[in-house]
Amino acid sequence: MKLETTPPRGMRDVLPVEVELRDRAVSTILSTYRRYGFRRIETPALESLWLLQQSGGGENEKLIFKVLKRGAKLAAVGHEDELADLGLRFDLTVPLARYYAHNRAELPEPFKAVQIGPVWRAERPQKDRFRQFTQCDIDVLGEASGIVEIELILATAEALIELGLEHPRIRLNDRRILTAIATACGIPAARHGDFFITLDKLDRLGRQGVEAELGEAGHGGDVIAKLFALVMPSGGDRTPEATLERLGASVPGTREFVEGLTTIVATVRGEAADRFDVEFDPALVRGMGYYTGPIFEAMHAGSSSSIGGGGRYDAMLGRLLKQDVPACGFSIGFERVISILMQREQRDGAPRQAASPIALIVEAPESPHALAEVLAEAGRLRHDGRSVSLMMKKKNVARQLDELARAGFGGYAMYRTGEGALEVKPLVARTDTR
Amino acid sequence: MKLETTPPRGMRDVLPVEVELRDRAVSTILSTYRRYGFRRIETPALESLWLLQQSGGGENEKLIFKVLKRGAKLAAVGHEDELADLGLRFDLTVPLARYYAHNRAELPEPFKAVQIGPVWRAERPQKDRFRQFTQCDIDVLGEASGIVEIELILATAEALIELGLEHPRIRLNDRRILTAIATACGIPAARHGDFFITLDKLDRLGRQGVEAELGEAGHGGDVIAKLFALVMPSGGDRTPEATLERLGASVPGTREFVEGLTTIVATVRGEAADRFDVEFDPALVRGMGYYTGPIFEAMHAGSSSSIGGGGRYDAMLGRLLKQDVPACGFSIGFERVISILMQREQRDGAPRQAASPIALIVEAPESPHALAEVLAEAGRLRHDGRSVSLMMKKKNVARQLDELARAGFGGYAMYRTGEGALEVKPLVARTDTR
Repeated sequence: MKLETTPPRGMRDVLPVEVELRDRAVSTILSTYRRYGFRRIETPALESLWLLQQSGGGENEKLIFKVLKRGAKLAAVGHEDELADLGLRFDLTVPLARYYAHNRAELPEPFKAVQIGPVWRAERPQKDRFRQFTQCDIDVLGEASGIVEIELILATAEALIELGLEHPRIRLNDRRILTAIATACGIPAARHGDFFITLDKLDRLGRQGVEAELGEAGHGGDVIAKLFALVMPSGGDRTPEATLERLGASVPGTREFVEGLTTIVATVRGEAADRFDVEFDPALVRGMGYYTGPIFEAMHAGSSSSIGGGGRYDAMLGRLLKQDVPACGFSIGFERVISILMQREQRDGAPRQAASPIALIVEAPESPHALAEVLAEAGRLRHDGRSVSLMMKKKNVARQLDELARAGFGGYAMYRTGEGALEVKPLVARTDTR
Repeated sequence: MKLETTPPRGMRDVLPVEVELRDRAVSTILSTYRRYGFRRIETPALESLWLLQQSGGGENEKLIFKVLKRGAKLAAVGHEDELADLGLRFDLTVPLARYYAHNRAELPEPFKAVQIGPVWRAERPQKDRFRQFTQCDIDVLGEASGIVEIELILATAEALIELGLEHPRIRLNDRRILTAIATACGIPAARHGDFFITLDKLDRLGRQGVEAELGEAGHGGDVIAKLFALVMPSGGDRTPEATLERLGASVPGTREFVEGLTTIVATVRGEAADRFDVEFDPALVRGMGYYTGPIFEAMHAGSSSSIGGGGRYDAMLGRLLKQDVPACGFSIGFERVISILMQREQRDGAPRQAASPIALIVEAPESPHALAEVLAEAGRLRHDGRSVSLMMKKKNVARQLDELARAGFGGYAMYRTGEGALEVKPLVARTDTR
């Protein structure tokens, strides 16, 4: 009987070409972040369901893959809600908070962590959205100063550039500025959450769409007009620093946050030179509810949506520890980045490998003498860093050589018992004749 | 309220020092295997429960972490056995077989795969045995010749040596030789399975222990005596080739298998030179039931149990495909290898990093001017590949410097507003005075 061999719904196998691209990307990211003083940590894929459900992860909590209790524990279950005790992590932030709380005594302060690993969400599968995907986060825990934001932004921009995503665009805002704007427009605090959710759709719906949605929610025309005058100001000096300056002067209660963000923006812009752009966007929201200060987003010409995002979340760790711990992170949209780089490879061709693999073909029946000769040749080539595969000669040699060329082999040699080593010849793929 | 912050039972957090060791090991293994023509693939962590339970994985099937069905599917469940539809993979071999069956059209033949990734087993936790651990496999699918075994053994021995596990010992046998020995001893085919399970305990129980267990199972003294005369022969030329020769002459029906294994042993020994040992051990069993031909095991002086194992399993893929596909693999015991290397680091000290990290300390309140100077200095050092962290000065500077030294920082510089860049000074950890 033939079994079903497709991967589970919404999940996928990764072919060698993409795995190699992903491995190179991970290695580039890690070496960049290491220069910025971050160290990689790892946590288990499973966390207690209770922790995941207490985490303030919002919608994500509904998407948890839950793991059935085992053995006697399962037999003792009385209610359906108690069937599961573990869940697959849906992000790397909840595990980081638990990790920090659990291992704090052994960690330096501030603690600078990089995490790259899979997360799982039982979402409805869509094109380019899978139920298992890789996240890539850097976080600094235990430091409240704006130098954290500066380092996170510089490290992320640098990593993106090193990955080949030249000239990224970093957009910045501060949740407290956003809150002050909402208050200045006369929106009561209880409605800020819904208000931010609507404003967050600006990229997708455009100004008119957001105005319509705010109107439907019962916000008056004057409120909406004032809002857009503040978040989409026109005229004047358009540098981020000047825009921040004007906003600070016109919205009460923003002075401190505007100064903090101005230091970050000005310092990062000074470092950016002409390698990346830095923008202040008072309409930037970023989805997650747990942000408490500066928020950021990375854009690139190769993608219509963001390729990274993050911000300060000083209140989250207090849930797991007896005291609050300042925290700030920046996440690279790893799957989106890989998708851009894969498309580029498919368009431009894979980067020419320094040395393509070589096939050393042995004629059956293999004799120890021929094998020794082949292996000596393989050893020499491998010593030079080449990728070498021994293989048996097939009946249709012409077809075998053609298949090898298609599979990316760049050379071959044929060994016959007693004939000694023959030279390695180049392999070139013929046009498809099958 | 303080939440529980330990990882789930039997699972663990990995601290930066170990992650870095693991990452180096993965990189060493991959670059070695790449030279031998293997390419990395990745499959999802979850597989259909049905596939995992049909896989012939024996005991491991009882240890599956099962994932609860979601939404309407869960609501529709009638029987407790139907609560779960997915499971976390318990090894990398079942996913490889499914991957090959599913993606065969896009893969070269033979297909040479390397996999390194986590697997999960709900075992009773023990010292150094965790419920999530990393496996590291190479497999060749689609080639029946002994050159596969030769390449797998050479690549694995090379990888172990590159990892720093000098002079590994590779032990070899063939399941068909073992079966012929059992038959020659007069053990009926139906009892071979149990018989192999007992013989597999030779390392742990010793010869007397195995003799006792075989006696209890009802095997006569003559059977047991004949068995040990064959699997632990004494006298004569002790080279693997000579031992194989004598065994082939004395056990009916082994000629073909002995010849095949002799070619493998002789060829590998020729390549091994004095870098690793190759042994033929007719008592070697290897646990898994699915082996059909040569089997192998890697040992190292740093560990009493094996640090790798594998063999030929030509019948497994036929379960997922319409036809049989020859297959052979060698797995490195990744966690055991890491454990040996970690112990060595703890004994000898971590390998001196080419350049230890540097702390650039800013005095509060940070001024844009001081920040720009610090960042310029950071940029220069990072350009040279150094790891550099910006941080705020703490109240107790002496203690801060001491903590930095303990955390592995090798140098620091202190920046004060308006004073300009100061030189980077070395940091040396004081003895513990706390």
